[in-house]
Amino acid sequence: MAAAAQDFSSATPSVAKADIFHPLCPLTGAEITTTANLVRSVWPSNVDLRFKVVTLDEPPKKQMVSYLEAEHSGAPLPQIPRKAFVSYYIRNTDRFHEAVVNLSAGKVESNVRLGPNVHGNGDYDEILQVEKAALEDEGVKAALAKLKLPEGTAITADPWIYGSDGVNDDERLFQVFMYMRDPANPGELDSNHYAFPLPFSPVVECNTFKVIRLDYLPTGADNTIHELRPYEPVPPNEYLPEAQPSLRKDLKPLRVLQPEGASFTLTPAGETGHVVEWQKWSFRVGYNQREGMVLYDVRYDTRPLFYRLSLSDMNIPYADPRHPFHKKAAYDLGDAGAGAMANNLKLGCDCLGHIQYLTAVITDDKGLPVPLENCVCVHEQDAGIGWKHTNYRTGRAAVVRNRELVLQSIITVSNYEYILAFMFNQAGEVIYEVRATGILSTQPIDHELDKVGVPFGTVVHPGVLAAHHQHIFSLRIDPMLEGHANRLVYDEAHAMPLDKDWNPHGVGYTVAETVVERAGGLDLNADANRTFKIQNPAVRNPVNGKPVAYKIHAPPFQKLLAHPSSYHFKRAEFADHNIYVTTHRDRELYAGGWYTNQSRGGTGVRSFAARNDSVKDTDIVVWVQFGINHVPRIEDFPVMPCEILKVSLKPVNFFDRNPALDVPPSEQSFNQSTLATNMHHQPALEATVGKDGACCGPAEQPGKSRL
Amino acid sequence: MAAAAQDFSSATPSVAKADIFHPLCPLTGAEITTTANLVRSVWPSNVDLRFKVVTLDEPPKKQMVSYLEAEHSGAPLPQIPRKAFVSYYIRNTDRFHEAVVNLSAGKVESNVRLGPNVHGNGDYDEILQVEKAALEDEGVKAALAKLKLPEGTAITADPWIYGSDGVNDDERLFQVFMYMRDPANPGELDSNHYAFPLPFSPVVECNTFKVIRLDYLPTGADNTIHELRPYEPVPPNEYLPEAQPSLRKDLKPLRVLQPEGASFTLTPAGETGHVVEWQKWSFRVGYNQREGMVLYDVRYDTRPLFYRLSLSDMNIPYADPRHPFHKKAAYDLGDAGAGAMANNLKLGCDCLGHIQYLTAVITDDKGLPVPLENCVCVHEQDAGIGWKHTNYRTGRAAVVRNRELVLQSIITVSNYEYILAFMFNQAGEVIYEVRATGILSTQPIDHELDKVGVPFGTVVHPGVLAAHHQHIFSLRIDPMLEGHANRLVYDEAHAMPLDKDWNPHGVGYTVAETVVERAGGLDLNADANRTFKIQNPAVRNPVNGKPVAYKIHAPPFQKLLAHPSSYHFKRAEFADHNIYVTTHRDRELYAGGWYTNQSRGGTGVRSFAARNDSVKDTDIVVWVQFGINHVPRIEDFPVMPCEILKVSLKPVNFFDRNPALDVPPSEQSFNQSTLATNMHHQPALEATVGKDGACCGPAEQPGKSRL
Repeated sequence: MAAAAQDFSSATPSVAKADIFHPLCPLTGAEITTTANLVRSVWPSNVDLRFKVVTLDEPPKKQMVSYLEAEHSGAPLPQIPRKAFVSYYIRNTDRFHEAVVNLSAGKVESNVRLGPNVHGNGDYDEILQVEKAALEDEGVKAALAKLKLPEGTAITADPWIYGSDGVNDDERLFQVFMYMRDPANPGELDSNHYAFPLPFSPVVECNTFKVIRLDYLPTGADNTIHELRPYEPVPPNEYLPEAQPSLRKDLKPLRVLQPEGASFTLTPAGETGHVVEWQKWSFRVGYNQREGMVLYDVRYDTRPLFYRLSLSDMNIPYADPRHPFHKKAAYDLGDAGAGAMANNLKLGCDCLGHIQYLTAVITDDKGLPVPLENCVCVHEQDAGIGWKHTNYRTGRAAVVRNRELVLQSIITVSNYEYILAFMFNQAGEVIYEVRATGILSTQPIDHELDKVGVPFGTVVHPGVLAAHHQHIFSLRIDPMLEGHANRLVYDEAHAMPLDKDWNPHGVGYTVAETVVERAGGLDLNADANRTFKIQNPAVRNPVNGKPVAYKIHAPPFQKLLAHPSSYHFKRAEFADHNIYVTTHRDRELYAGGWYTNQSRGGTGVRSFAARNDSVKDTDIVVWVQFGINHVPRIEDFPVMPCEILKVSLKPVNFFDRNPALDVPPSEQSFNQSTLATNMHHQPALEATVGKDGACCGPAEQPGKSRL
Repeated sequence: MAAAAQDFSSATPSVAKADIFHPLCPLTGAEITTTANLVRSVWPSNVDLRFKVVTLDEPPKKQMVSYLEAEHSGAPLPQIPRKAFVSYYIRNTDRFHEAVVNLSAGKVESNVRLGPNVHGNGDYDEILQVEKAALEDEGVKAALAKLKLPEGTAITADPWIYGSDGVNDDERLFQVFMYMRDPANPGELDSNHYAFPLPFSPVVECNTFKVIRLDYLPTGADNTIHELRPYEPVPPNEYLPEAQPSLRKDLKPLRVLQPEGASFTLTPAGETGHVVEWQKWSFRVGYNQREGMVLYDVRYDTRPLFYRLSLSDMNIPYADPRHPFHKKAAYDLGDAGAGAMANNLKLGCDCLGHIQYLTAVITDDKGLPVPLENCVCVHEQDAGIGWKHTNYRTGRAAVVRNRELVLQSIITVSNYEYILAFMFNQAGEVIYEVRATGILSTQPIDHELDKVGVPFGTVVHPGVLAAHHQHIFSLRIDPMLEGHANRLVYDEAHAMPLDKDWNPHGVGYTVAETVVERAGGLDLNADANRTFKIQNPAVRNPVNGKPVAYKIHAPPFQKLLAHPSSYHFKRAEFADHNIYVTTHRDRELYAGGWYTNQSRGGTGVRSFAARNDSVKDTDIVVWVQFGINHVPRIEDFPVMPCEILKVSLKPVNFFDRNPALDVPPSEQSFNQSTLATNMHHQPALEATVGKDGACCGPAEQPGKSRL
C-alpha cells in the first residue's frame, strides 16, 4: 500500500490536524482522500473499489450535546474522534460494503459486507456507463432500426433506478427509458428529448454493464404491447429561449440592492463548515452527498431550538400500473443524492440580490474529492409586511417588513428539478420550502389516444404521456427546545356541546391538547384544526405558564396511494402519515431507510416507530411529511412552472411577546421606494417622517383619520 | 329642494355627461353628490338622512356581457344607463332604506324601506358618536369610579357590532368594549390599550345614542360576574418602536429598483376606473365601500377568464360562550366595509419598490364624497424562480424568474388589520392573498388564572385574555372561461383495486372527474386529492382534447364550529363549506348576505344555493372559502406577525404548453445581482454569457457536468 500511504501524506495535512475541525464540519477534500486510501488499504492492491459515499460520520449525539454545551458556555471542549462513513463496492461486482474510518486514529474501525438486497446509490460514472451500455447494445440498435427514424436522429438514454417488484430483481439493475431528439434539429444538444419518447426500454445490469432484457412498452390504454412501428413525425416542444417563436419584450428589470451589504455573517469553520448569524439566529451549515444542506445547532437569541434539520427523504411513485412503469418510484435522496445533484448556482440567474455562495466537497466513484462550487446560495429577501397596526383614533401606523434569510440549493434529478430552501424570519419562524419544477418523465402513447387519454396520466404533447405521480417529502426535525427532553403534542379545537347554562347560544369552542405518548405515525385533521407542537413542558412561559413550544404548519396531502401489500408501500416507510415521531438514535437519519435503491422496506421511520418507544419528555425526532399528487397539466410541459410547498415551524408561547417587535419600522429613508408615475397623491418622494422617525406617523388631523 | 338643486348643478358636470364613463367605473365624487341630492329630493327638506352606502349599481350582467363583447370587438357600444345604489337611514331613526338612482335619467328609480331586522353598516361618524355616548354615560362613569384608576388615566371605548342572539336585539345596537391606556404614560395617544381591558361593557342604542345597558363581564373560568374591584397595576405592552427597550441595529437596507420603470400600464378610465395591462394580462380595477378592490373582465392574451373577482365576505366568530362575548361575530366587509377602512398607503412604508397608487372615492354619512387616497398600491415583485431545467448531459441550464403583479390594500378594522392582495404571474395564475395582522381583541381575565388559563382563549399579558376565534373568508369568482357557459367539476385520485392482470403490484391509481350538477356547498378532501376546477367543456385543448379549465388551490380550514341551530351558523351562510357554486344572479354578490349587521340569516350563498339550480354549462358563480382558526399565541401580542393565506387559480389544459416559456431567461445583465463577499467561486462579477444570451449556459466541459 505504498501508493495509498503516499497519497495520504501528500493530500492531507496530517491525521491529527483533522481534529481541529468542528465535529459537525463536513469532511474536507483531504479527509475524503485519506478515508478512501485507508479503506483501500484493507484490500489487496489489485482490488478496485467503486466508492458510493464518503462522508462525515456524525459523532454520537450524546457526545455532541456535551460538546455543544461546552462550546456555548466557553468550557474546555471534549475530544471527539473525527470519523468518516463510507459505502463502496468491489468494482464490477455486487459486493457492497460499509466502513467507518477513524480519521483521528488513522484507522479503519469497521468494514462489513452488506446484503443481500442492499444496493448503493447511483453515481455519475455509473450512470454514464449505463447510458453507454444501452446505446451500444445490439438489441437496442435492432429495435431502433424498426422505428425507421430519419437519418442522423440522436438517441438519448435516461437511466432510471430500477425499483422493486420482487420479480427477478435481486441484482443491481437500471431501467433505461429511451428518447430521441428532434430529428429536424439534430445539432441542438439541448433539444427536449422528453417530447420524443421511444416505445422500448432496455434493462442494464451493473456488474458487467450489459443489457439483460429489452422491455417493450405498452402504449395504448391497456397492457397490449404493439410490434414496433415506424415513427410518425411529431413537432418538437422546446423550452430553450432561442427556440420560442418570440420572447416577451415588455418585462422591465427589477433589481435588489443591498448598498450597505448583507445583514448576515457567514463565518467559515474549518475548510468545509460555516456558522451563520443573522437577526438573532445562529446555526451551522453542513452538507453531504445525500441530504445536501444540513443545519445544526439552530438557536434564536442563544436559546436552543433544533439540534439538526434536513430534508430526510423523498419518494416519487408513479400511477401507471403496467410493466415496467409499475416499478417507477424514485427516492432522489437515497438513490442519487440531493447533495450530489446540486446545481452550480450562477449569480444573477438562480439568485436575485446580494448573494453569498457556499462550496462543498463530496466524493466521486474513485474516492477522489469533487468540489461542488456554489451548491448553496445564501441571501436575504423581503417577504412583504411583517406586522402592521394603525390606531384609527390617531391615524398613526406602525409597520415593519418581514426580512427573510434564505439558504437555497437546486438539484437536477435527470428530467426533474427541486429548489430546496431553508428560510428564517424575524418572528422566530423557520420555513422549509420546496419548489418542484423541471421536466415531466414522459412515455409514448398511441396517437389514437391523444385526444382521449388514459386515467393514469395526461397527454402533454402529441404521442406523449406524462403519468400521474406523487411527490412525498420527509423533513427531519431533531429538536432541542430549551433542552433535549421534548415531547410532541397536538391541539384540537372542538365545539362545546349545547348547554343551557354554559353554552346556551351554541357558539362556544375549546382547544384541548393531547400528548403523544408512544412513537408512531400521526395525521393532520383540518376538521379538528389539529396542530402538532414540539414542546418542552419543563420550561414555562413566564407570562401565561404554558410550556414553551414550536408548532408545525404543514400542508395536508394525499398519502401514498399504493396498496399496503405493495413494494411501493413497504419501501416508502414515511409516506403513509403526515407526522412520525420516534426516539432519537444515531444513524436513524433517513425516513425511507439508509439504502433506498431497490430497497425492500423495513429500514425506515415506520420501522423505527415500531419499537413503540415512549416519546414523552425525551430525546425525540419529528418527521414531517408533505407533498403533492402531481396530476400533470399540459401547462407543466415542456418544463413546469414551480409548484411551491412550505412547512413552517412557529413559536407558540416560546417568547413572551411578538419577537419581531424590535424590528426597526419600515421607513422610506431606509427602503427608498420610488413612485411609478406622477399619477399619485404622495406629498413628495420622501414621505413625511413622524415622531421618533416613524414615517407612517401621525395623521395630519388626529381624530379625523380614515376608519 | 332648492339647496339640493344648487349642489347638483355646482358639484356635478351634468347628469348626461356621467354616461361617458365605462359602465364598470366606480361612481365619481360628483356622481355621489348627485345621487345623494336626488335621494334627498324625494324627502321633505327637513328630513335629515344618514347615508350608509352610495355606490355604483353595477349594470345587469346580461347588458354588460353585450357591452364587453362590443368593446373587445370594436363594435358600437350599447347605451347602458348609469345607476347608483344607495342605502340610508332617516337620521336618528330605525327607518332604513334602499334606493336606486338612475344618473343617466337624473331620477330616483326605486326607494324602499327595509326591515325589520335589517340594519346598515356602521359608519365613521356613527362609531364616533357611539364612543362618545359610552364615555359620557353616567353609569359608565360610576363603574369606572369603582375601579379606582390612577388620576388622569385615559379611557378608550371600542364599539363592536352587536351581533345576533335573538334576545332583545331587534334594535340597532353597539356593544362597546372598554379599555384604559397605560396610566403611567397618559400622554401617549398610541399606547396599546388592548393590554388594559376593563370588566364592563355598555350597550349603545343608535337612534338616540344612549347607553341602554351596562354588561358586566365574566373574568374567571365560568359565568360568574365579580363585583367591580379596584384596579391592580399591570405593566404595559406596547408595539410602538420608541417604546421598545431597543431596536435591532444589524438590519441592512434592501432596496428594490426598477431603473427602466414598471412593466405594467395603468390607464385611467374615467375619473375612478383603471385598466391594468401587464404581461398579457388585462383587467379593470373597480373599488367600492364594501369589497374594496373589485377586478372585472380579467383576460389573458385577450382570452376571457373572469368576469368579476372580489373578496365577498369574511366572518370572525369568537369561542367564548359567555354573555356578552357569545355575540362577537364580526363581518368586517358587511358591517364596516373593506373599502371604507382601507389605509392610506405610504411610499416606502407599506410598499417596497417601484409603486403606483390608486385613489378611490366613497361616501360619508352626509352623502358627501370622501376621497380615499392611496387605498390600493400596484407594483411588481420578484417571486423567486419561475421554472428551471438543467440538461445534465450538457450542463446547460434554462431558468426564468417568476415576476408577479400585485394589487394590495390594507384595512384596519378597529384592533385588527388585513392585508389583501390580488397577484398575477407569468404562468397564467391568479393568486388572492390575505395577511392577517394587527391586535387581538382582548378581554379581562382574573390574575389567579394568568398561569392557568381557560380552554377558549390564551392569556397574552397579565390579566389579558385573547379568546380563540375563526377567520373565515369568501372569495367570489364569477368566471367566463372562454365564454359564460361554465361548469364546476372536481377531480379525485383513487387507488386502482388490486387485480392480477391490470394492477398486480398494487401501485396503480387513476384520476376521475365528477361534474357538479346542482348548486350547493362542497368540501375539499385531501385524502382523495379532491381538486375543484372551473371548466368550459365547449372549448377543448387543441393537443389533448381536454376541456379548458382553471383549478382552484385553496388551503383547507376548520369550518365554522358554531352549532347549526346558532345565529352564528345561520348568519355565516358561507362558513360551512370550502366551495359553493350557484347560478349567477345580479345583486348576489355577498356570501353572508347584503346586510350583515345584526343579520338573521337567509340572505347569503347557502340561500342562493337552496334554489337547487342546475349549474352545468351555464353562468355560474364559485365561492371559495378559506380561513384560520386563530388560537392565539402569546407571540401574537401586542401585534401579531402576519399569518398568510393564499388561494390560487391555475390553468389546467387551458394553454397548450407552459405559458411562461416565453419569459426571457434570467440573466445577470438584466438582474445585476451582486456578491456578498469575496468568499465565492464566481469567475467574475458578470457571469459568462452563453449562446443566445443565456448566461446560465453551457458547462465548460460538456459531458463532464455535475449530475
